Amino acid sequence: MHVVVIGLGAMGYGIASALHRAGMNVCGFDMREEVEANFSKLTGLAIDRKTALAQADCVVSVVVNASQTENALFGEDGIIKDLKSGAVIISCATIAAEEAIKFEQSASEHGFLYLDAPISGGALRAAQGKLSVMASGSTEAFDKAEPVLAAMAEKLFRLGDKAGNGSAMKSVNQLLAGVHIAATIEAFAFGLSQGVSADQLMEVIPHCAGTSWMFENRGAYIADGDYRPHSANDIFIKDLNIVQHAAQMSALDLPLTETALALFKETSKQGMGKQGDVAGLKLYAEQAGLALPPARYEEA
Amino acid sequence: MHVVVIGLGAMGYGIASALHRAGMNVCGFDMREEVEANFSKLTGLAIDRKTALAQADCVVSVVVNASQTENALFGEDGIIKDLKSGAVIISCATIAAEEAIKFEQSASEHGFLYLDAPISGGALRAAQGKLSVMASGSTEAFDKAEPVLAAMAEKLFRLGDKAGNGSAMKSVNQLLAGVHIAATIEAFAFGLSQGVSADQLMEVIPHCAGTSWMFENRGAYIADGDYRPHSANDIFIKDLNIVQHAAQMSALDLPLTETALALFKETSKQGMGKQGDVAGLKLYAEQAGLALPPARYEEA
Repeated sequence: MHVVVIGLGAMGYGIASALHRAGMNVCGFDMREEVEANFSKLTGLAIDRKTALAQADCVVSVVVNASQTENALFGEDGIIKDLKSGAVIISCATIAAEEAIKFEQSASEHGFLYLDAPISGGALRAAQGKLSVMASGSTEAFDKAEPVLAAMAEKLFRLGDKAGNGSAMKSVNQLLAGVHIAATIEAFAFGLSQGVSADQLMEVIPHCAGTSWMFENRGAYIADGDYRPHSANDIFIKDLNIVQHAAQMSALDLPLTETALALFKETSKQGMGKQGDVAGLKLYAEQAGLALPPARYEEA
Repeated sequence: MHVVVIGLGAMGYGIASALHRAGMNVCGFDMREEVEANFSKLTGLAIDRKTALAQADCVVSVVVNASQTENALFGEDGIIKDLKSGAVIISCATIAAEEAIKFEQSASEHGFLYLDAPISGGALRAAQGKLSVMASGSTEAFDKAEPVLAAMAEKLFRLGDKAGNGSAMKSVNQLLAGVHIAATIEAFAFGLSQGVSADQLMEVIPHCAGTSWMFENRGAYIADGDYRPHSANDIFIKDLNIVQHAAQMSALDLPLTETALALFKETSKQGMGKQGDVAGLKLYAEQAGLALPPARYEEA
């Protein structure tokens, strides 16, 4: 199986490594030459882009958003010019369902299969091949992508026979994830204001009904004074904007999502958009004069 | 060990049963005579209130709020008149830290030990003796309460040597729990508006980064059309008011908490305050014309 992975950020690099470990012939492309070179060293393969695409049975696109996906697939230097006819494109970026529908249509017009397949689980699980994949698309696309999906996912959810359903599910997940990160921030601010330490929160809350995946994951960063962009604040501005836009089309107000989005936006406005997505805690701390766990990573 | 449990709601009944199963001599009091009679049948003990209190080494108070706690302990018919001198009072209600400090003081003045010991985990874990207990108080109070705590808790957290710390931690937990319930409601509304079914959400989200304890617990009620008050909407008005009040004393704004509280209040205003705390979903559904999973329990 020949696979091309586009986008070697934390998630893409992890996925590409997992596919390589599963015995596939994997080429990785990235805007940053040194990252591409690193991955080539890992696999021992150094094939030019044109050749790699001409051989590829499957492309996994792990870029950041819809416009990057569009450029990477169908843009001036997009892959479809060189991609082997009939290949399946697995698109993992968090995008609006309507964009996924559009991309499936374009792919089909050019003779390719398309899978709307957003992912969840973080960089560590990506590298372990243990992601959750929320996928929808044609039976042909699923069949052709099967070995790749098996190597990257612990949980593969088949959510229907056309693009859009996978992205719709992912947008619900991002609503929850974004609100839970903001809730984690607010809970730490409140706890610190009441004399409860960050370490006590991390000891107790995971055993109580107030816990969440995000509390346990992002709370550890807060307690550790880690504001590095494992996932940047601005990512959730993008993702919650997708949620808000889709909800507006359905005449649905989402007041909690709006409140969480306002925090991420204000954090960005204060110059912390490229920091980790718990940076908004500093705004609460400033407001109420709270002492946060000392920031330990100066590069943030 | 002689124990009196005050308040035989779902949590209190569960705790009392767990203590009985652990071999303790347990009497249960409740405003509702038939509930008291039921518990007496379970234990085979039928001792009058005065005698039970005169023998008790420990009282576990599992009432709803601070005013009920005050009445049950120190009010006109309060237990302290008849309680065996030196007994320890384990107070489990969710109350403000400042109330807990006051109650510890009063208990001490009357010759009793006091443990500020809010709980988390739900009725099922209460009955299994597997609660999380967030406790603070004197070493003497912990020592005397030890066998009772061991029988009711899977996780006992010792959060300091004076009352207040336990309740402060519980209020952080309630902030998270309340926001997560509201987020669960909002996520289901959004998902349904995007063509994602309730059953699909319950299948996928628990395996993704958007999950929370509350999503998995309350989401199951939503998918099942269950609006019975396993925990009533109005409970979270009380609990989030405690959070808001404490935050205000620290000059801290909590916008997410405020947004969640507004949902619980509006739900109550629309006559659904005694329903389960996911009833607010009906407000979203009405706004956007969403079809919810059919309500299956007409008593709600």
